[in-house]
This record gives sequence, C-alpha cells and structure tokens, in this order.
Amino acid sequence: MFDPVEKLKEFVSHASVSTDPAFAAGMRDAQTFVSDLLASIGFEVEVVKTKLHPIVLASRGTDASWPHVIIYGHYDVQPADPLELWESPAFAPEVRGDRIYGRGTADNKGPLMTHIAAVGRLLEQEPDLPLRITFMLEGEEEMGSPSFPRFLADYRERLQAADFVFLSDTGIPSPDQVVITCGLRGLVLCEVEVTTAKSDLHSGLHGGVLRNPIQALSELCASLHGPDGRVNIPGFYDDVLEVEEWEKTELKKLGGDDAAYQKFLGVPAFYTPQGFSPLEAIRFMPTLEFNGIGGGYQGAGSKTVIPSRAFVKISCRLVANQDPVKIRQLLYQTIRKRMPADVNFKIHDDHDGQPYVVVPPDRANTPPNQSPVLAAAFRAADQAIGDVFGNPPLYLREGGSVPIIAQIKQTLGLDSVMFGLFLPEDNLHAPNESFDLRVMERGMRVSEQVLRSLAGC
Amino acid sequence: MFDPVEKLKEFVSHASVSTDPAFAAGMRDAQTFVSDLLASIGFEVEVVKTKLHPIVLASRGTDASWPHVIIYGHYDVQPADPLELWESPAFAPEVRGDRIYGRGTADNKGPLMTHIAAVGRLLEQEPDLPLRITFMLEGEEEMGSPSFPRFLADYRERLQAADFVFLSDTGIPSPDQVVITCGLRGLVLCEVEVTTAKSDLHSGLHGGVLRNPIQALSELCASLHGPDGRVNIPGFYDDVLEVEEWEKTELKKLGGDDAAYQKFLGVPAFYTPQGFSPLEAIRFMPTLEFNGIGGGYQGAGSKTVIPSRAFVKISCRLVANQDPVKIRQLLYQTIRKRMPADVNFKIHDDHDGQPYVVVPPDRANTPPNQSPVLAAAFRAADQAIGDVFGNPPLYLREGGSVPIIAQIKQTLGLDSVMFGLFLPEDNLHAPNESFDLRVMERGMRVSEQVLRSLAGC
Repeated sequence: MFDPVEKLKEFVSHASVSTDPAFAAGMRDAQTFVSDLLASIGFEVEVVKTKLHPIVLASRGTDASWPHVIIYGHYDVQPADPLELWESPAFAPEVRGDRIYGRGTADNKGPLMTHIAAVGRLLEQEPDLPLRITFMLEGEEEMGSPSFPRFLADYRERLQAADFVFLSDTGIPSPDQVVITCGLRGLVLCEVEVTTAKSDLHSGLHGGVLRNPIQALSELCASLHGPDGRVNIPGFYDDVLEVEEWEKTELKKLGGDDAAYQKFLGVPAFYTPQGFSPLEAIRFMPTLEFNGIGGGYQGAGSKTVIPSRAFVKISCRLVANQDPVKIRQLLYQTIRKRMPADVNFKIHDDHDGQPYVVVPPDRANTPPNQSPVLAAAFRAADQAIGDVFGNPPLYLREGGSVPIIAQIKQTLGLDSVMFGLFLPEDNLHAPNESFDLRVMERGMRVSEQVLRSLAGC
Repeated sequence: MFDPVEKLKEFVSHASVSTDPAFAAGMRDAQTFVSDLLASIGFEVEVVKTKLHPIVLASRGTDASWPHVIIYGHYDVQPADPLELWESPAFAPEVRGDRIYGRGTADNKGPLMTHIAAVGRLLEQEPDLPLRITFMLEGEEEMGSPSFPRFLADYRERLQAADFVFLSDTGIPSPDQVVITCGLRGLVLCEVEVTTAKSDLHSGLHGGVLRNPIQALSELCASLHGPDGRVNIPGFYDDVLEVEEWEKTELKKLGGDDAAYQKFLGVPAFYTPQGFSPLEAIRFMPTLEFNGIGGGYQGAGSKTVIPSRAFVKISCRLVANQDPVKIRQLLYQTIRKRMPADVNFKIHDDHDGQPYVVVPPDRANTPPNQSPVLAAAFRAADQAIGDVFGNPPLYLREGGSVPIIAQIKQTLGLDSVMFGLFLPEDNLHAPNESFDLRVMERGMRVSEQVLRSLAGC
C-alpha cells in the first residue's frame, strides 16, 4: 500500500487552481496523478472531457448485484493568494506537528485521499470485495461546478443504478466529534437595478422633484424584513417544515456556545428570526440577504449628485421543501408590487439551487422511505465513527449550499452520506490551509469500516 | 477699447483647470492675462497669494464717499474631458454663428469679460466716474473655493466697506428673459458607515444570525422620507418660512412647463413634497438626498457574501432661515435614534454651507432692511434689464448652492446682485460649452448702465 501522507503531499504539490488559466499544467498534473493512483489500486479509469476541466470516473466491481457506492471528491483547489501570508509555500506541502500545510490539504485533497487510501488498504486485504465503488472526481468544484449538471445528465444511465454517494467535503466541530451533514440550504440569486433620470443630476438644481434611486432601493430593501426579523415576502415560509424534535435534540448535543459564536462574528448583538436561536436559525430557517449594493458617488469626500442608477444583489438561502422557482416568483412579485411608479427598474436573474435534506434512519418519527443500502451505510457510518472517534456522529443540517448534492439527488435520485472531516481551524479558502493527520487516519479507518460493512465482510 | 470677443478668446485659450496640477501653466497665464487686462483699463491690481491659486483683487476709485461695488468672478474652469466629444478644441475657442465655443466661455470667463468690458467702455467715456469698483476674482471656484473663507477674513477690513457684490455666475431661461437670483440653498453633508461582523461572512454558514449592514442602512435611509414625500426628521421644517405671494407670482411668470421638465429629466413621474409643484419644490423646499451608497460585492454576477460594511453619503439642501448646524444636529439625532443596537455605525462629518436669500426692494410686503446703494442697484438692474432685454428680470430663488455668496454675507455683511447670463443650452461643465455673444453684448450694456446709474451720471 502507498503511504497516504506522501501521496497527499504529491497531490497537493500539483497546483490545481481551476479558476485561473495560468494553472492549466497544475490542473492537468493533479488529474493525471489521481487517475494514475486509482488505476494503481485496481480501478478502471475514464477521464470524461468537459468544456473546461475533465471529470475522473474510476470504477471497480462489475457484479450488478453488489451494493454500489459512488465516492465524490474534487481535485481542484481555491487560489492561494495572498501568497505572502503563507508560512510555508502553498504548493510545497509541509508536515508540521500533526498537520499537513498547503492549499487543498483540507479542501478537498486530504479528505479525498482519506477515502482513496481506505479503499486501497481494503482492496489489498480483500481483492475480491463484493462491492462496486465508483470514484467521481470533478475539477470545477471551486468555480461552481459548471460542467457537472451536463455530466450527470450524460452519465445518468450508468450512475443512477448506484445506491448512494459517500463524500467528505463538510466540516466537524472538533477532532472527537464528527458531524454527518444531512441538510444543505438552497439558493436563489438576483439583482435589482433601479434607474430614474437620464443621467446623474445636480442635487441642487434638481433635488426635490424626483425619487432618488437609492431611496427607492432602500425602501424596497427595508421592506423585505419584518420587525420580527423574518423575511417579509408573502408566502415565503409557506413550505418550510416544522423542525423535528430529533433535530433540535441533535443540535443541543453540539453544545454550541452563543457567546463564543457572537465573539467569533464580532457583532454587537445577534439578529435572528423570532423563535430561533442563532445556531438554529442558520440550520433551520431560510434567509434573505443583501450581498452588495451600489449607486452614485462612492469615492472620498462628497459629490452632490443625484445618481441615475443604483442596484442591489439579493440572495435567499432556502431550507428543505422550499422550491427555488416558487421563491423566485414570490420575491419578484413582491419587488414589482412595492417598487414605486416614479422609478424604472429591472430584475436580473442569477442562478439558483435546490435545498437538500436526507433523514438518517432510526431518528425521525416517520422512518424515511430510503434504500436499504443507504440505511445500512448510515448505520455503518454511525457505528464506525463511534468506534473510531469515540463518539457517535451528530446529524445536523448546515447553513451553506453544495448545489451538486441536490443536483445528484434530482438527476440520479441518489442521496449522500456527508461524512465531515474539516476542522474549523483548517483555514479553508484562506492562507495556511492545513489538514489534521490524526483526523485523516481516523477517517481512513471509518471509510474502510463502512465499505467493509456494506460489502458484508 | 479692446475687442471683448477677441479678449475672451485669448482668456479661454489659457487652459485654467484649477483641480488638475497639470494645468498649472494655464492657471498662471489666465491669472496674468486678467490681471494685465484690468491694469490696462486703469485698475490697481493686487495678486493675493493663497495656498493654491491666487485671488486677483483690482480696484479703482479711492474716494470713500463714493458708492463701492465689488464685482465677483472666477478665472478657473472645469476639466474639459471627455475631449473627444468637443467639436472644436476646448482651449482653442472658436466663434460659430452667434456663439463662442470653448471650456469656460460661459462658466465664468464670458460673463466675467462682459463686466470687464462694460467697465472698460464706461471708464473710457467717464474717466473720473465717481464709483469705487473692486474686481474680486478667484481661481478655485471649480474646486469649492477652499481658500476663499480665509481670504475674506484676511481682507475683511478693506472689503466690508463696500455696498454690495455684483456678479454673473447664474442662469437665465432664455435670451429675452433675465433672472436675478435672490436665493440659494444651503448644504449639509455627511456619510453614514455601518459595520457589523469582523469580516465579510459566508451567507450560507452565517446567514440568519446577524443584521446585514445593507439592511440596517436601507432601513435608515427608507425612514428618512415620509409617504408624503417630505423629509422625515423631526424639526426639519421648523425654520422654513412660508413662501411669500410675490415669489409665487414671480415663479408663475417664468411659465415653466412641467411636461417639458419631466422629459428633460427622463423620469417616469415626479416625486415632490406634498403641496409643492416641481418648479416650486426645487426653489422653496429643503431636501435630503442620497449621493452615493456602497457595500459588499458590486462586480458582475454574484458572490454570496454578507458584507461587514456599508455606507451612504447624504446631503441636505437647505432654504432661507434654516441653520446648517441645527439641521446637522437633527439629522444625526435621528440617525442615532433609528440605528438598531445590533450594528455599529459612525457618522462622518462633511462640509456645510448657509442658505442665502436677498429680497429685492419693492417686492416683499415687508420692505427689506437694506442699504440704499443695494436698493438702488436692484432698481437700476431692473430698469437696465428691462431696457436692454425687452423684459424686466424675474427674481427667483435657485435650487443650487453657491457657498461663497453666503460666506460673503456672513463675513463682510454684503448682499449680492446675481445677474444671470447663462442659457440652458450653454453646456456648463460639459463638452461643447459655449456662450451666446448676443447675450454677452446685452449683458455689457446692462452692466454699464447699472454702474453708470450708481455713479449718478
């Protein structure tokens, strides 16, 4: 068997920044590296071309009666700048203490290597393991996975026969407490642009006769939340389900500390929808946020102009059972209804994403209608994590969105078991990203035990 | 006597852009040119150094018993770009038809030359004219006259003995209808900056627990106008005086066309404070405008961030009898009261300016308490404008602010007779600025007649 840490160092040394064409060689090398590594442990590797960065599809096991797990990961990484803030070079990985430092060590090359090494170790011991495994590794995750939906549609026939998706691309609170993420928020994005006069106007000569676009936009934005902190769009919460008791219990086990969270954010006070604590609100409730606003003079000092244009970028995070298409419609209706007739405006569409939720077996009051292999995988993960990490996992929804998880569910009908491995101190997307090697070793043991259990040996 | 149009061409050819250090030579040449010209018609010229561009102070007449008029003007001009939009070069003035084209032809070199030529012609005929005339010409008007208050304070002793200020740096609606501007709005400027978290946050991971600074700012901005279109700050209108009947009558004579004004602005509808037509609102009512707003991501597409900071630039235009210090206080109190406790904020002061009003004699119900020379100047201007332009002037307030007029009133105690000469089509501050030579010729005759009348000959 290969040395997982040495292989991870090699993987990280290929600077695979997907968004920057200057890193084309690093992308190619990282993809070749991981393809070769999978071939070396007995996988049949197909490199699927896309418009940009190829997807690696590597399979072992051909017996259709065997359980079939897809392991998802991505071989691309975030840009590494600002480079001067790195203590060791981003693409010359270095082990210091129990950690390996370098861009992509945690997101996602380390967790991906955890699974590859687990599979390698397992197949070395059980070459005839009765389990179909397909690695599905993309190179565009850090740019929003633009080629992924098309790939899923093209490979639907072949992939939808699998039982579930297994991945490690989510976080955990501490090295002793794993979280299996079982919900992700959806997204609806748009931009509202208000225009008034033909050009910017002198605020003295014309001030007092027309509505300033910043005023119109402010009035709209101010109307989108009520005094109770909830989103003030009729129908916005209609499809939000009551939070089940087990989820609240699970969240309590996390033992979150509001004061510490407030300190981490650096805010004078929390602002949550009525009836929800901060840690509940980010997991269980949809939001409407303003991501950016602009209009008029933004330089130093003053310019007494009435701008002719202002815009705001709006995003909604949606929870399980909310439909992005419907929410977009409600949002647009509200904007159209509230915008005064004395300004012109346009709403520019941006992308959206479905929320996702998967209910682990043995938790919900109403047992979820799910495949026995998925249920077995959840149970196996629960057992293995308890054995290896010393505590059973918590099953929590997360506030973020991983659109591919909902896309996989929509296109292939497959649920995901999201076995978290990042720690808060891993510095994802930031300088000095690192990955805890003890977590990696534990993760390998969990992955191996889960796969072994699914294979029934 | 010199040829006024030839001299104006020479004046305009000196590219005196005060804001741009690259035009230092043009500034120096324009100042020297106008100083020499005034010396050539018998003025004693003093070039008063300031921190930036000098002020030209040129006097004739020493008998303290004579009436004393200060003629104000400025020899600096706005930048000329975008240069490619000029039909003839900005600083190579060209006469086409009845107009002279070039940067500064209208603002303010043409109107200033009108007065210099009138004085030159008058003194040629009446070398012993019993009238003290002081030209007070600055070179920083287009940058907000930063050196002017200091200059006024330093020269107070010498200047406050004058009777009034005569100037042409305001507009008229048509070549047959002159306006004497008798009111200017004041100003209060500030910036409100809202900060929340320590840094920009991921809108998925943390969305729903803190108030977005754009939301806080929108709620503030939206609260600053009422549904009646009035500024919603307690006490804001307390010192606004009732508009006098004569002012309304005067404005009616202007015969403004709302439909044409709306078309000019290009707005779907007007938005005015209840009880005021658009043309009344810009002259008689104070305003609160948003000059700029910014925060978060403003680039193309989307970035699902919760910004940590947002700001808005606010300006109020004030009318006669409102005090900028008091209005600033009311505005700040309101902001402080309305800002929620879950965000941090700062209010950054910017400059302010007093509103200005002068009441022409024989109009108001209560005759203004003003010097006989000022009253005589108004009457002389009324007569001369009627004689030369075919219609007596209208006495109107303007929506804009010319802070130096209020500063002169405050520091020297002097009122101004603002004899307008720009036409709407003169393109001030824009490419292809021009000045109507027929208006210039008429203006010279008015100026000459007014000065002759004041001298009693």
